[in-house]
Order: sequence, then structure tokens, then C-alpha cells
Amino acid sequence: MIPTTLGGEVVDDVIPANVQAIATSLRFFIVENVKSARRFLRKMDREFPIDECVFHEINKKTEASAIYHFIKPALEGHNIGVMSDAGCPGVADPGAAVVTLANEKNIHVHPLVGPSSILLTLMGSGFSGQNFSFSGYLPKDRKDRIRALKHFEADTYRTGNTHLFMDTPFRNMNVLEDLLNELADTTMICIANNLTIHGEQIRTLSVKDWRENAFDLAKKPTMFAIGKKQ
Amino acid sequence: MIPTTLGGEVVDDVIPANVQAIATSLRFFIVENVKSARRFLRKMDREFPIDECVFHEINKKTEASAIYHFIKPALEGHNIGVMSDAGCPGVADPGAAVVTLANEKNIHVHPLVGPSSILLTLMGSGFSGQNFSFSGYLPKDRKDRIRALKHFEADTYRTGNTHLFMDTPFRNMNVLEDLLNELADTTMICIANNLTIHGEQIRTLSVKDWRENAFDLAKKPTMFAIGKKQ
Repeated sequence: MIPTTLGGEVVDDVIPANVQAIATSLRFFIVENVKSARRFLRKMDREFPIDECVFHEINKKTEASAIYHFIKPALEGHNIGVMSDAGCPGVADPGAAVVTLANEKNIHVHPLVGPSSILLTLMGSGFSGQNFSFSGYLPKDRKDRIRALKHFEADTYRTGNTHLFMDTPFRNMNVLEDLLNELADTTMICIANNLTIHGEQIRTLSVKDWRENAFDLAKKPTMFAIGKKQ
Repeated sequence: MIPTTLGGEVVDDVIPANVQAIATSLRFFIVENVKSARRFLRKMDREFPIDECVFHEINKKTEASAIYHFIKPALEGHNIGVMSDAGCPGVADPGAAVVTLANEKNIHVHPLVGPSSILLTLMGSGFSGQNFSFSGYLPKDRKDRIRALKHFEADTYRTGNTHLFMDTPFRNMNVLEDLLNELADTTMICIANNLTIHGEQIRTLSVKDWRENAFDLAKKPTMFAIGKKQ
């Protein structure tokens, strides 16, 4: 399980040297996007022999029978790299299905270290990391979204849990609007965008203070968190 | 926010080169444990000038007034490294309080990439990473622990959420016993121990299959997850 960059150009910022060495030693890959996988491998090793490699692309709809076929080289002793389009594979991408089938076939799974916008946001938020939830993408419908945000807020006040969530970048400003209009003045919100890449911003403020200091989040990869100050 | 190893000896396995360069360029540190912080810095740079550095140790009981004092160099233009005893600072350690005070003083917080047993377990579990919760340490009392485990199980069946949790290493075998005795045969459990260090094991099996394949978890740093196969 090989993490990739979150969109940044400098691999040494986010991928440990020995993870890079493992990744570029492989010749079999199961990836979310072949183009970005190749670009990542060449960024780590300009001489990386892409033509000697086998790449299989998977998405949400890839059937188990196809994945069984893709993991066959592991049964013959080859290591296979699983890569997501960005960040850690298996966390919010089809890589998890590969892990499940590997487990069934008794193939050893080795998760490697790399960047996760969830973890980085948690580290930079000042909120509790003893109890936290990541809820993925918010509901598309505005009423449902507001309901979800209010649920996170109420749960944070009740339990102290940290709630992390995100949305597609083109809806970020709608999410921000809902957070600032619908939540209590004193509720603490962390907003992180462009993590590990140029223009990184991460800040925790109360709803009241965010109203006067809002970032421009339009089209930027952004993670939100509601939590309790530690 | 500077991650450290999870106990492994090879820094290049888990810390990106540029994170190491940032860490060893600093001279002010706020750390959970001075001894292990110094050892980590020397592991990255054998010539690291420890005697030129200022280390402040913090724990759960450190008062805000002391932390204000520790972060003062940042107001004078110095960068300060925050390090946990192991893994990512600010996630389940007093580092979060430093972030909160830094935010209040308008000091920029920069979370850096490193190993997290939570994320690595999620990556290697084959469970959903779209919705997951980390609940920290389980309750000490056996009845409360079993209630928590059954709650995770029921929630996973109901929502598909992945539940990650841990316990102090000397109680690992009690947790395993409770998981295998109290949960349904078909419930899927991931157990990860010694992540990123010698003897790493990570495996996802049903309760029924775990009964015949249990690891020896005694005294090993271990993460547990209950989830739905993807």
C-alpha cells in the first residue's frame, strides 16, 4: 500500500526514502489512475522502467473477479504496489477491495507511510485526537448538509469528539457559508487547505472569528473539522 | 508538528527526508519526552547540536501559562518543533494544547508527514476509509469494554462505519478474548501490531477465523478495527 503525494511536486516532502525505494523496486501495480501512478514513479526515479511494468487500473465498479486476476502475481512471489490517485491507498478509494481479496488469499499486506489530509488536519487542529471521526463527503443537498453539520456540532459539545469531513472542492464555499451561518458563535472549526502543497493554510477559530477571517476555499482541496479546544 | 518513529530504528522508513531536514534545522522544541526527542534528533543527524537547543517537556497536566512561555520564541521569529513520544504529535498527546495556544497567538502551525498507526491500520484493513472513527483506549472495566465492543459491532453492521480502537499493551490479550468470545462469528476484525517495526503483523479475518489464527499480542503495540469488507 504505497501512498502518493497530495498534489505537491516534491516527493521528499511527504514520502520516506525507504518507501520510495520499495515503490520503485516493484514491477506490478494496481492503481486508481495509471497516468498519475507513472508520473509519480518517474518523479521518484527518472530512470524508472515503466515499460517493464504491469499496471492495472481499478475503480469503484471493478469486479472482484478482475481484482483476483490482478493480484495473481503475488501468489507467484511478486510484490504488488497499490496506489491511489492522491494520498494513502485503501482509505477512500477502491484499494480497500484489493486488501480484502489479498487477505482472503493469504497475501501479506504492508501499509507504508505517507501523507493523509485527515491526519495532518487532526495534528494541526488542536482538537482531540483521542476520539475522532472522519465522515467523508458531506451530503449534496443543502438541508441534509446542514443537518449533518449540526449533528457534528452537537456531538462535539456532548462528547468532545472531533469530527472531520470534506466536500468536492467546488462546493467548499457553500460548506463554509453553512458552517458560519448555521453553527453557534463559539463552536470551534478547523479549516485546512492545500495541505503539503504550495499555499498550505490551516487554522482553527471560532465560528464568530471565522466570519471575519474566512479563507478563499474555492476549488482548493480542503478538510474541515469541528472539535473542542484542548 | 514533527512526527517521530513508532519505535522502529530506521528513520528513513517512516519520516520523509525533507521532514527530517526541517526537524534538524530547529533549535527550540516542545516535546512529550526529552530523552526520546534527543535520541530521535541524533538518529537523523549524528552531529545534531543538542547543547544549542532548548527543550521543554509537556504532559497532560502542563498549564497553559507554561505553554505560553514555551511558545514565546515563535513570536520572536523562531520555529518550534513539537514532538510526541511516538508517531504524530497532537493526535493523542499534549501537543494539541500547544496548537491551540499557537492559534490564539496567530502562530502558523505546520503539520508534517509521518507514521500513524491509526492510518496504517485503516490502509491495511480493507475496511471503509470513507467513514471511520477512532475511539482511543477502551474502558478498563471488562463489562464496559464488552459494551463498547458490541456498540462498535452494531454500528458497523448498521452504518458500514469502521471502528478503530486500542488498549494498553498488557491488556491486549483480554481485548482479543472479549472480541472472540463476545462478537458474532461473521464480524470482521483487523488486528495490527508492531506497525512499521520488526515483526509487523496486520490481518483481517472474521471472528470465527481469528479463533483459529490468533496472534500473540501480549505487550505488543496493537491497533484493532471492526469494519465491513469492501
